[in-house]
Amino acid sequence: MRIGEFSAKTGVPAATIKYYVREGLLAGGERTGYNQVDYGEAHVRRLRLVRALVETGALPIATVREILSQVDEPERDLDSALGVVARALSRTRESAAEPDRADLREAEAIAARQGWEAARRPHRDLTALADVIGTLRLLGLDAMVERADEYARAARIVAETDLELLAAKESRDEVIETMIVGTVLGDALFAVMRRIAHTEVSGRRFKSAPEAPDSGC
Amino acid sequence: MRIGEFSAKTGVPAATIKYYVREGLLAGGERTGYNQVDYGEAHVRRLRLVRALVETGALPIATVREILSQVDEPERDLDSALGVVARALSRTRESAAEPDRADLREAEAIAARQGWEAARRPHRDLTALADVIGTLRLLGLDAMVERADEYARAARIVAETDLELLAAKESRDEVIETMIVGTVLGDALFAVMRRIAHTEVSGRRFKSAPEAPDSGC
Repeated sequence: MRIGEFSAKTGVPAATIKYYVREGLLAGGERTGYNQVDYGEAHVRRLRLVRALVETGALPIATVREILSQVDEPERDLDSALGVVARALSRTRESAAEPDRADLREAEAIAARQGWEAARRPHRDLTALADVIGTLRLLGLDAMVERADEYARAARIVAETDLELLAAKESRDEVIETMIVGTVLGDALFAVMRRIAHTEVSGRRFKSAPEAPDSGC
Repeated sequence: MRIGEFSAKTGVPAATIKYYVREGLLAGGERTGYNQVDYGEAHVRRLRLVRALVETGALPIATVREILSQVDEPERDLDSALGVVARALSRTRESAAEPDRADLREAEAIAARQGWEAARRPHRDLTALADVIGTLRLLGLDAMVERADEYARAARIVAETDLELLAAKESRDEVIETMIVGTVLGDALFAVMRRIAHTEVSGRRFKSAPEAPDSGC
């Protein structure tokens, strides 16, 4: 299809499509004549993926490029590709410093209680967990560390759901793409639900929901 | 304290402290003499908050400024301040377009099943939920919409935990600050745990954990 049809089909302006091509997020169309370029179904699929990352995920272009490079690297095995993607998507910076030994022991204890394999070997994610624990303590949020098992329970529910989605996929590319889109949209879904849940829970607890016309107080 | 002591106490370089002051994230110290400025405990507390947002939260300076302006606006009532902060922190872009009616009905149905008040009145967060549902369907992730109640369950667990933290706080400023730090660090905690849970669940499901030395397969 020509760029006009491609744009109409995906709802993305032609200028934006060209920008993505220039930025290396989307392969250029096949040149079929002077000043004429042809786009196929693979382009449509990739463009939807880019839009989910840029719009719903609100990710910077450089991060999107890094993530897509994993999809496009067939040499890379699935596990390590998923790992790179997961780290790029979790927009929390990781500290370069060694975590405190006490924090690391706390992280190991949480992992052990959850029955995570990670507890049984040195693991990069365990260091990241120790890092977050250290920051929580520094900022006086020890209560959150104490409730870490609740967080782990919520994380497991979400992870199980995420992986359900992958179970139906067969090719390596489909698994990686679904994982990316699922994580970005899963984050969006989780964020909005958490916001609603906050309003509900705080409405009950602090009785401070002035917008409710029928609160009767 | 002088800037050298302030820097040593917080572990933040003096040049970075000055940068935050220039960017309006941190009030300048009190001028006590020529070329001499004094910082107090309020500065230490605010600097820790700024660091959590910039470093752990990896938030852009403009977003941090927007969030802090809510803390510093005493006229603003608690509920609306928390709402603005929550939206600034959830790094998903919200669509300006009206959501599809079918998506909105689906969002209302989920809210009703969860017993959320939001289901009973037009609500901005409900529109955001409908938006995410629309994007999920567009990208062929209907299975995630079907599992939305599981996500809601996880969101409730996290929200209850978050609000636990606030229950102990008394002043308006403390509630807002705890909510900000709690959300940013809660997101970090959740992200790392979800990543670990992914590895665990996919390890079980796809049997593809080559790093495990004792997997025996």
